[in-house]
Amino acid sequence: MEAISPLRCFTHLFFGLLLIISLSSRYSALNHAEFSLNCTNYSPWCTSKNRIQSKSNLILDNPKPEPFDHSTNTPNHPLDPLTVQEINKARSILLAYPPFVASLPVIHSLTLDEPDKSRVVKWAKGNHLPPRKAFVIVFIHGQSHMLVIDLGPGRVISHVVNYKLGYPILVTDDWSNALEVPLANEEFKKIIASRGVEFFDLACVPLATGWYGPNEEGRRLIKVQCFSKQGTVNYFMRPIEGLTLTVDLDKNEMVSISNTGNGIPIPKATNTDYRFKVQNKPLNMIPVNPISMEQPKGPSFTVDGHLVKWANWEFHLKPDPRAGVIISRAMVRDSETGKLRSVMYKGFSSELFVPYMDPTDGWYFKTYMDAGEYGMGWTAMPLILLNDCPHNAHYMDAVFATSDGKPYVRSNMICIFERYAGDIAWRHSEFLPSSSEVRESRPKVTLVARMAASVGNYDYIIDWEFQMDGLIRIKVGLSGMLMVKGTPHQNTNQVAEDENMTGTLVSENVIGVVHDHYVTFYLDMDIDDSDNSFVKVNLVKEETSPGESPRKSYLKAKRNVVKTEKDAQIKLKLYDPSELHVVNPNKQSRLGNPSGYKVVPGGTAASLLDPNDPPQLRSGFTNNQIWVTPYNRSEQWAGGLFVYQSKGEDTLAVWSERDRSIENKDIVLWYTLGFHHIPCQEDYPIMPTVSASFDLKPVNFFESNPILRAAPNDEKDLPVCRAATSS
Amino acid sequence: MEAISPLRCFTHLFFGLLLIISLSSRYSALNHAEFSLNCTNYSPWCTSKNRIQSKSNLILDNPKPEPFDHSTNTPNHPLDPLTVQEINKARSILLAYPPFVASLPVIHSLTLDEPDKSRVVKWAKGNHLPPRKAFVIVFIHGQSHMLVIDLGPGRVISHVVNYKLGYPILVTDDWSNALEVPLANEEFKKIIASRGVEFFDLACVPLATGWYGPNEEGRRLIKVQCFSKQGTVNYFMRPIEGLTLTVDLDKNEMVSISNTGNGIPIPKATNTDYRFKVQNKPLNMIPVNPISMEQPKGPSFTVDGHLVKWANWEFHLKPDPRAGVIISRAMVRDSETGKLRSVMYKGFSSELFVPYMDPTDGWYFKTYMDAGEYGMGWTAMPLILLNDCPHNAHYMDAVFATSDGKPYVRSNMICIFERYAGDIAWRHSEFLPSSSEVRESRPKVTLVARMAASVGNYDYIIDWEFQMDGLIRIKVGLSGMLMVKGTPHQNTNQVAEDENMTGTLVSENVIGVVHDHYVTFYLDMDIDDSDNSFVKVNLVKEETSPGESPRKSYLKAKRNVVKTEKDAQIKLKLYDPSELHVVNPNKQSRLGNPSGYKVVPGGTAASLLDPNDPPQLRSGFTNNQIWVTPYNRSEQWAGGLFVYQSKGEDTLAVWSERDRSIENKDIVLWYTLGFHHIPCQEDYPIMPTVSASFDLKPVNFFESNPILRAAPNDEKDLPVCRAATSS
Repeated sequence: MEAISPLRCFTHLFFGLLLIISLSSRYSALNHAEFSLNCTNYSPWCTSKNRIQSKSNLILDNPKPEPFDHSTNTPNHPLDPLTVQEINKARSILLAYPPFVASLPVIHSLTLDEPDKSRVVKWAKGNHLPPRKAFVIVFIHGQSHMLVIDLGPGRVISHVVNYKLGYPILVTDDWSNALEVPLANEEFKKIIASRGVEFFDLACVPLATGWYGPNEEGRRLIKVQCFSKQGTVNYFMRPIEGLTLTVDLDKNEMVSISNTGNGIPIPKATNTDYRFKVQNKPLNMIPVNPISMEQPKGPSFTVDGHLVKWANWEFHLKPDPRAGVIISRAMVRDSETGKLRSVMYKGFSSELFVPYMDPTDGWYFKTYMDAGEYGMGWTAMPLILLNDCPHNAHYMDAVFATSDGKPYVRSNMICIFERYAGDIAWRHSEFLPSSSEVRESRPKVTLVARMAASVGNYDYIIDWEFQMDGLIRIKVGLSGMLMVKGTPHQNTNQVAEDENMTGTLVSENVIGVVHDHYVTFYLDMDIDDSDNSFVKVNLVKEETSPGESPRKSYLKAKRNVVKTEKDAQIKLKLYDPSELHVVNPNKQSRLGNPSGYKVVPGGTAASLLDPNDPPQLRSGFTNNQIWVTPYNRSEQWAGGLFVYQSKGEDTLAVWSERDRSIENKDIVLWYTLGFHHIPCQEDYPIMPTVSASFDLKPVNFFESNPILRAAPNDEKDLPVCRAATSS
Repeated sequence: MEAISPLRCFTHLFFGLLLIISLSSRYSALNHAEFSLNCTNYSPWCTSKNRIQSKSNLILDNPKPEPFDHSTNTPNHPLDPLTVQEINKARSILLAYPPFVASLPVIHSLTLDEPDKSRVVKWAKGNHLPPRKAFVIVFIHGQSHMLVIDLGPGRVISHVVNYKLGYPILVTDDWSNALEVPLANEEFKKIIASRGVEFFDLACVPLATGWYGPNEEGRRLIKVQCFSKQGTVNYFMRPIEGLTLTVDLDKNEMVSISNTGNGIPIPKATNTDYRFKVQNKPLNMIPVNPISMEQPKGPSFTVDGHLVKWANWEFHLKPDPRAGVIISRAMVRDSETGKLRSVMYKGFSSELFVPYMDPTDGWYFKTYMDAGEYGMGWTAMPLILLNDCPHNAHYMDAVFATSDGKPYVRSNMICIFERYAGDIAWRHSEFLPSSSEVRESRPKVTLVARMAASVGNYDYIIDWEFQMDGLIRIKVGLSGMLMVKGTPHQNTNQVAEDENMTGTLVSENVIGVVHDHYVTFYLDMDIDDSDNSFVKVNLVKEETSPGESPRKSYLKAKRNVVKTEKDAQIKLKLYDPSELHVVNPNKQSRLGNPSGYKVVPGGTAASLLDPNDPPQLRSGFTNNQIWVTPYNRSEQWAGGLFVYQSKGEDTLAVWSERDRSIENKDIVLWYTLGFHHIPCQEDYPIMPTVSASFDLKPVNFFESNPILRAAPNDEKDLPVCRAATSS
């Protein structure tokens, strides 16, 4: 990548950056995103007008002898993301596009404009690719513009201005602008001094702000809060509580300064740093010997560009700046016929909603929508070898476009590995004298595709796990740091009976504020073909008639094919259970059962906020745990395409209210994983991972158990290993 | 073990067995338990009056060079199960006990009578063991007797007759008696002939029957149903539908024969056998290369008798004929002080409830309580090396007493292994120009203790997983075979609109009947000490006052210390969420938070049966998902000590109604994992494992993240492996 772009900083930005660097000791940070002010360093956020990843970093991040050459890479699947060359070409086209000739606007998104489903489905290896197009979002003069560029003929073929509310995803320029304003503000400087923080210890983070009514409407506002990084890299644990700056991003001006935190000390740095190299006490436990997943004959999967093949699965896997990871064209081989059969056309984490439960001045606006405001791909840093993924993992890089329209390589953003966790795929044992014992058991080996986004303080680990029995497990793990609140209290005995604590005292002067996490997945299921139906199989209590049976009651499974969207707005109920199937009504098993997959809920939590509360309106996609909508190319982002400061007019909740027909149609299933998080001391200073998952599971899709014929593990297949240190 | 007991069959039983063997070709089987009629073979059920495991089997099951010598083993912990010598001694004492001198009654249970908690807690290594006692249940003349034997002085110190309803766990003698009766019955023989089944293809299973009102009350009845094993080991898929024999176990007489299945064909054997050696078609998938969890420096845990030590955990682990596995004295090392701290005094699967949802004649009584009727330990066969547990597993044998009071070794009943599944214990990555990148991630390594019970057709895999962050995950996996029902239908298009199908057509002429599984765990939590409280931390929606905040609503965590049992009867509600803590109100963190653990629900399903339906009365412990009771030595089995044909008068539901105080007391937490199972074709002929779990998780138990100082994986720790076949 090093050959592609010389290091170049626009002059006015360069000085702006320098100013901040000098004032804040080359350091600044933002919640829910981070920011490099030094463009010679590697940074996931240093993707603005001036740089792509340097050679040295590529080597650092990818220890393979021959790093993948992104500069010459060409697409070989209709869904492959834009390549370095394609991004460069798109930029050239934009630079020559008459409205932008004078000045290239800030590019908030530049990604593949995916071909229509019908074209993708028809495409086969060896065919020409459908026309390659780029979808671009730029922001200029207070307006979002959406453009489609046909890269073949090299022209803009569509250009639409967004007149609805909501702004595009924030880019590095926005973060730097947000930080420039306070640093020039004398009042801010005085406050910082009065709180006893040295300017070079200051770490300020620009926080996206949701829409909260007319006062803060119609302009791109951002809230800036600051921390002390003195003595720790974990500045998140050292808030300068009560100080909130509201900045107008486009006017570059301070809208207001709120300073209510006098008397609240800044929590100490002691015991906040989590880096291994600074730990100076031993761990109080018996050391654990090295353990590793080993495959001496190598992994069993292949990755051809973005096409992954493993066991009976085949799917397309790509990084996306907003969604993080997109799985497409997931197909499984039929255990009887050997033919590949479609399961899911496209699946990804569409939006997140993270409301903090504190309505006070410095906290009410913390109701993040991480995908649409920050980007799960933008915030996914290179995975940490041997720790984020096991020894036997394969890594995939991402190529994204910067806000200047240049290509940028995020190395090792996704890992793919086979997993054997010691679990059992199926088993039975029995004693049969006539035929000796029956003792049959099969090990469970799966394939995992993983990414980890560090959206500021929080880390989201997203796993797609494929099982040979046809099951897909989607798992989200949460780690990283709590968003904490300063308090005068050092012990709960100092808290007055009637005091409204909005969380748990997790350290001296530190409250871990109660919050929720919702991760909503877009799952365009195409079971055997695109036309599917959604079926609720309700388990209903039946009463027996007098004298009919010694039993009074039993459960009966009742199938209800759902006709329209509103009937597919599902709130899960423990005492009104149902299985939820996506079936192909046109494809029956040999027994006449429709071919299907069911969504198996897990990690459920419901949002309890008032449905008319602004954050809940904006994140209306969490009003139900499950929704089904007819496929609509423009309905992929559950909170809307323009999430930042939206009013929630373009959400899944709004689309679904149209109550369109969903029977025997191309339909999309939406599932929301939810977490209520009441912090505890164990979450301090960094949280042990909490995870939850849900499954997509075949139901009468296969004629019988598809892994009946799987082989058991055998002693002769075991690797022969020795400790590395014994060599 | 071979030296201890000569092979001896009681003469009358021997002839009975021979009769069955000759008639049924040395073969018979039972649902929810299996049965050897050939006492020279190994069998988990061949534990009656006549045998213990032979030497050859010990070697077969345990490939270690020096098998553990159970014959000389002595207990070295107060909770260690009875040894071979102790069981022999108990039997001698019983034989000399005046009431039993004439004839030793059938022994339904002979296990350690655990010392009082206070004695166990005070005991330290090096101390004398508290007096070793045996608790014995015998059945004689229609009555259950409970005896306590003090093994030291060698005498019976307590002898109580059970006058309540309910009978003890079934033993092999019961199974064989149940099968003798029909084989002497001419009507039965005629029916079998009329259904076209050759006598030597017959496989009959005695099914425990719940109490269903006065008709079948006050006597030990059993239902016998038969299958054809012609052409398959998977006879469960070949029911002779509609034929149900009711046998009086004590009178050895046929009570009734119900034959309603004429016209229902016996499903074909084709494609039912699941043994690897009979599979003759290839698996339609890319072969997966060998993969293994490797620890070239060996495992990090130690097993000293039954005491397991690993990382920061220490616990006592033992097999139990009824519960399967019992975890006791689980203690975790404090990350700050290094001291061991109590978490749980005792935990085990206390009872199961498996109601099938078919009220008709041959099915209404299938509402199994697998622990109390069959025994999760009795039905746990030796684990299958390399497949049930990974390469790096350690195996533990069980020593049980047969119904003749003799010791019996079940080899490899439990496995213990360290797991690295490629998951992340905690992580964060961030770009900080002033201090370079922060990229910290820690691999998650856990310890798993596993058993697998084959309760007839179904297999239950029970895992206790210990994490270094203090979390305990309890997971139940379900595999094995469906309990299926014969039907004339070969395709769903033959099913009439108004026909009451009680399940899914999973193969030609085979219905997989809808059913539930509930597994209720006894969890005697002793957080730091025995006196604990149960706290509901409710998340409640609060509305803001007008003008107070741009937010309308937020959630507030409200702590409610539960005073009495009834307030601890918890039905989980998605829209009324709470965290459920067991805390020690007498032990605070340095911040004043009470030391606690929370139960994190997972795998929830609620029983919807009528609360007055006989099976629901008997399994009233499933009326709620969570209960808390004060510790009571006699309240350990959620369905009562005598479950078989009980009326449910001694269940958790009844105990809890006493509404005793549970605040700042020694309390027991009960959690029920639930599964609704609507079968599908993928479950045929053997089911891919479905699993669910719940967690016990520290909450303000540690002062901070207890694995903050854990080390990352390092390249130098990786094993160096080669494929075995390349050697």
